[in-house]
Amino acid sequence: MSQTGDPHFTDVRVPDLDQATVAIVGLGLMGGSLAGALHGACRAVVGVARREASIAFALDRGWIDRGTTDLAQGVSEADVVVLATPVRVILQQIPEIALLLPEGCLLMDMGSTKDEIVAIMERLPAHIQVLGGHPMCGKETSGIEVADPALYRKRTFILSPLPRTSERALALGWSLALATGANPLVIEAARQDHLVAAVSHLPYLLACALVRTVDTKTSADPLAWEIFAGGFRDTSRVAGSDVTMMLDILMTNQKQVVAATEECLEHLQTLKTLVSEGDEEALRARLSVIRDRRREMFP
Amino acid sequence: MSQTGDPHFTDVRVPDLDQATVAIVGLGLMGGSLAGALHGACRAVVGVARREASIAFALDRGWIDRGTTDLAQGVSEADVVVLATPVRVILQQIPEIALLLPEGCLLMDMGSTKDEIVAIMERLPAHIQVLGGHPMCGKETSGIEVADPALYRKRTFILSPLPRTSERALALGWSLALATGANPLVIEAARQDHLVAAVSHLPYLLACALVRTVDTKTSADPLAWEIFAGGFRDTSRVAGSDVTMMLDILMTNQKQVVAATEECLEHLQTLKTLVSEGDEEALRARLSVIRDRRREMFP
Repeated sequence: MSQTGDPHFTDVRVPDLDQATVAIVGLGLMGGSLAGALHGACRAVVGVARREASIAFALDRGWIDRGTTDLAQGVSEADVVVLATPVRVILQQIPEIALLLPEGCLLMDMGSTKDEIVAIMERLPAHIQVLGGHPMCGKETSGIEVADPALYRKRTFILSPLPRTSERALALGWSLALATGANPLVIEAARQDHLVAAVSHLPYLLACALVRTVDTKTSADPLAWEIFAGGFRDTSRVAGSDVTMMLDILMTNQKQVVAATEECLEHLQTLKTLVSEGDEEALRARLSVIRDRRREMFP
Repeated sequence: MSQTGDPHFTDVRVPDLDQATVAIVGLGLMGGSLAGALHGACRAVVGVARREASIAFALDRGWIDRGTTDLAQGVSEADVVVLATPVRVILQQIPEIALLLPEGCLLMDMGSTKDEIVAIMERLPAHIQVLGGHPMCGKETSGIEVADPALYRKRTFILSPLPRTSERALALGWSLALATGANPLVIEAARQDHLVAAVSHLPYLLACALVRTVDTKTSADPLAWEIFAGGFRDTSRVAGSDVTMMLDILMTNQKQVVAATEECLEHLQTLKTLVSEGDEEALRARLSVIRDRRREMFP
């Protein structure tokens, strides 16, 4: 039973994006890039970071209007607060921050898994608006030094509204995603976690298993380094991702990740058996179907 | 015991590249791109293809000086013949073409696996020079329509000389690779097959297993198509490769591919178990080592 628009939940104060003060908690790759992307599109961007240096960097680039290391001060006048920290930091921050937010403020996040996050958001006081978010972009390097206001452009920005999320709050989140240049897409939390387990978290584990294999198989050969290119570079790219971020993702989407990996192990085992047995007819049929699917997925 | 430079093998006729007539057998993606890259760097480029349309295309682009569908005619005046067909076609072509080659002609190939190819080259008459080749580049589309003279630029071009390959023949092959803009690298055939099994053929099977998994896990959800991006796009790219080409590669490097895949299955199984058991300490340690290796491999 949807509570969207339920008068019990306050959203009288939810403004349009150009009238909103947006506080971004966490000025790393994602938060710094978001600040740069939103600056100029809203009334003010406030940066909240642990390190003074991150604030100085963002001010220097003109990405934020003001910055603070004091969380309470940073969010006290916000119309929107976006949590741009690793997933399990977000889980800890939500109850703490909820106590500090002005009435009708929209609390969003940018964590890659959504189910545990919206479960905690669901329990917040009724005077706070909540909306899960997951922009599908990133880099294999972290920190505000590599942030880029163009990071979100043309990427999918998933929005996971809760039953209690008002239409005005969702519209504001949608405007925020659009303002970064991203393509907003509404998907319910559990459904997004199921999809990204296969599309995003499994590719990470595959890339890691590949790097480990190549390392074991070739590290004794000095010439190996000369041929690390092409397919291997692409297929292994995400294995360079930030480990703390990825651990949070894997641990908050454990069941779905394990299920996707088990299925992939079976498919890989089947392909290996067909190669090993030299069953070319079956191998050709299987590889052809896969090739066709890949080409349909990325025309 | 190396026979390099053995006077028993004829290489009196081996000219410098700019004085050489190069015949390319097979005008597809690889052969067409090679023709375009070499044209102007040697005396003449002759294209040999099954389809008249491929010859017309290459002539129209100015990539070849002349073309023919007649193999004997195409190679009759060649100083260098490069086989640019799938690996098992190359295996069939080598004995047939050997009968047609002028004395001292250098026979090269561009197949991705080298062990079976050099084994056949080894048995050719002494008046023919032989050299295995493997340029590490390609596309997920095939045919001369997608050929590109810049395809080889900055890519590694593996050269696998045989004991009987003369120094002058190897130098000519080296010049040819350089003329395409590639970086030539000499690796003995069995050693290259071992390395590329891990670095190139395993990533293909992983990409295929991933596409199959994503397809199974998400095809029922119409929104899945909206989030096929980022890590998945990169990790799955090579799954779109030409199946006939890949079958030839897998079947002529069977043992090495199976061994690399078995090792990867073990690593993936271990990662899955650590995620499943929530053993964060061990998982963090393992993922951190892998991240560091990936960053060393591609600084």
